[in-house]
Amino acid sequence: MSTKQDDEIAQERLVDLAAEFYDQFASGEVPQMNIPTRTKSNIVFDEESKVWVYGDRTSTRSANSVRGARKLLKAAYAIEFLVNQLEADRSSTLRELYYLSESWDNEEAQFSSQDESNQLIEDLEIVSGVTREDFHMRPEESGATLMGPLELREQTRRGEREIHCQKDVGEGGYQIPNNPDTIDFLDHDIDFVLCVETGGMRDRLVENGFDEEYNCLVVHLKGQPARATRRITKRLHDELDLPVVVFTDGDPWSYRIYGSVAYGSIKSAHLSEYLATPEARFVGIQPEDIVEYDLPTDPLADSDVNALESELEDPRFETDYWTEQIELQLDIEKKAEQQALASRGLDFVTDTYLPERLSAMGVL
Amino acid sequence: MSTKQDDEIAQERLVDLAAEFYDQFASGEVPQMNIPTRTKSNIVFDEESKVWVYGDRTSTRSANSVRGARKLLKAAYAIEFLVNQLEADRSSTLRELYYLSESWDNEEAQFSSQDESNQLIEDLEIVSGVTREDFHMRPEESGATLMGPLELREQTRRGEREIHCQKDVGEGGYQIPNNPDTIDFLDHDIDFVLCVETGGMRDRLVENGFDEEYNCLVVHLKGQPARATRRITKRLHDELDLPVVVFTDGDPWSYRIYGSVAYGSIKSAHLSEYLATPEARFVGIQPEDIVEYDLPTDPLADSDVNALESELEDPRFETDYWTEQIELQLDIEKKAEQQALASRGLDFVTDTYLPERLSAMGVL
Repeated sequence: MSTKQDDEIAQERLVDLAAEFYDQFASGEVPQMNIPTRTKSNIVFDEESKVWVYGDRTSTRSANSVRGARKLLKAAYAIEFLVNQLEADRSSTLRELYYLSESWDNEEAQFSSQDESNQLIEDLEIVSGVTREDFHMRPEESGATLMGPLELREQTRRGEREIHCQKDVGEGGYQIPNNPDTIDFLDHDIDFVLCVETGGMRDRLVENGFDEEYNCLVVHLKGQPARATRRITKRLHDELDLPVVVFTDGDPWSYRIYGSVAYGSIKSAHLSEYLATPEARFVGIQPEDIVEYDLPTDPLADSDVNALESELEDPRFETDYWTEQIELQLDIEKKAEQQALASRGLDFVTDTYLPERLSAMGVL
Repeated sequence: MSTKQDDEIAQERLVDLAAEFYDQFASGEVPQMNIPTRTKSNIVFDEESKVWVYGDRTSTRSANSVRGARKLLKAAYAIEFLVNQLEADRSSTLRELYYLSESWDNEEAQFSSQDESNQLIEDLEIVSGVTREDFHMRPEESGATLMGPLELREQTRRGEREIHCQKDVGEGGYQIPNNPDTIDFLDHDIDFVLCVETGGMRDRLVENGFDEEYNCLVVHLKGQPARATRRITKRLHDELDLPVVVFTDGDPWSYRIYGSVAYGSIKSAHLSEYLATPEARFVGIQPEDIVEYDLPTDPLADSDVNALESELEDPRFETDYWTEQIELQLDIEKKAEQQALASRGLDFVTDTYLPERLSAMGVL
């Protein structure tokens, strides 16, 4: 839960950052901020937390140029805004921050594009060790939905809400709030968590009662999952000790969706310990399934081939399993969507495919 | 509500269609299906229902060519599938239908692309006068969310759920199901319905308690609204006699979002009476607001200018209000996002802008 205490820690860290600039000035140094280099070559596997984090290489934002000085000025203004926001128990979106800067008294401190303000917030996350959610910065788009035997309590601005994610929700399920750390898990009957890429497949599983029959919690990823969706998935795994499996289309873009659940992204490796579920496993559609279940396919486009080749060189996919599957796919030159399972009938996915795959994986 | 009776009507109409092909065959005619021409030049304003519907021009799908005959064969197979689906009280997505056709015994009846199966379902909607929802065809992506003083009952496959859209939901709100005709409105305290384009603005309104202070129901459109979102908006207006206002960014694409709520789309003018809320009014961001509130703007791109010019020629936008606003925008050559209101502070939208605009419109 995002508590008063979390808010105070966030404020403190932000003020510490500003104080550091001040101390550098006071001691006659040129103020600067050091930030890990955020590229594929600077991520390393952390054995302890089992996630990919940034390595030792850093980049410096220094006031030794006009451009650099302006960056630190903007950082100082943003810090002031965030500290005030936390004090008032308000929140805002990244886009609102960008527009809001137009009201700042110093024109040099105003952001010239939303990319600039977005990046600054990421920098502040990294340097302060506090997540954007704890700054009370909301994303533009909300998380997805849950359906399954889970009872939770959400702390809203309007008081607590206790919600059972099957009995108290409509067919659309429970909408994950922007900051899922406002949720406490009260009770559950879940055997495993099933993250599903597409809305069509999510609805299929719910219509067929898969969550009821197999005591599973269906998490709709809605394509590339929002931070809120990844965060709640991680918390379900860590706090309730539940296996997590990911069910997507069978193409390189969907493997990246799996990757973002399991390994985190290169752009936000500073958040891996907060967002990634390294124990999450991939159900499919595997290239092997395309062959085994003789699924309707589309040919790989050039961009698919490039993406697969780039995955072969990505340290996060350097396992025997992924090497084998990706090489198989490059060999058969085909991809398949998860809804292609409907070519064997609408119940094939819940009666045959998932039970077979989950048994083979030892989840059932 | 989608009742057993609705299902029976849908089945009957579908079987009637197939019977018509049969009768045509039996009487020695070449089977055919007549469908309204779906272009901008063939939509007319229906004075009675106040929505734009198709005019008199029709296109014919006839079996007098191999291509045409194959189309009718596919229609016959799809009709059989839909009738069976309704009998079994199942449902499926458009994509599942496409894949499922691979299991049909006649290869000529299988769809060669999803565009083809999508279009066939639209044709069947038009010819049968039954909506896709009543065929039990689900969209890929679900509707958006509601937040406000509304108590409803949703008929789910797992029984009835009674939900208050403030007291029984988290901050994410109530997720609209794929077919909102499974909802009954039980009780409400709503003065007006406020449809909002972006997630960031929706969250701002909810954080600021705008729904509580003004007794309004906030409907998140999520960009171009899904059918489910438009349908429930229309039902709120018609059944509860509530004013509906639409709040979007200030650019031509957003005016189209307003247009799809108010007037329906050219592609689905056969559904206007089911989906469109012609009494819905546009709050803003109006081009006039850009000037009046001195909002941060972006210059119009060429594609924006083209879209605005095309709207000037669109019969649905041929009103004094829209002509004036669009000409003003072409003149100032600027557009603004709804979140640009944050340049005047995070509460400006709820304390000043919306109260001023809604008072001027007579809604408050």
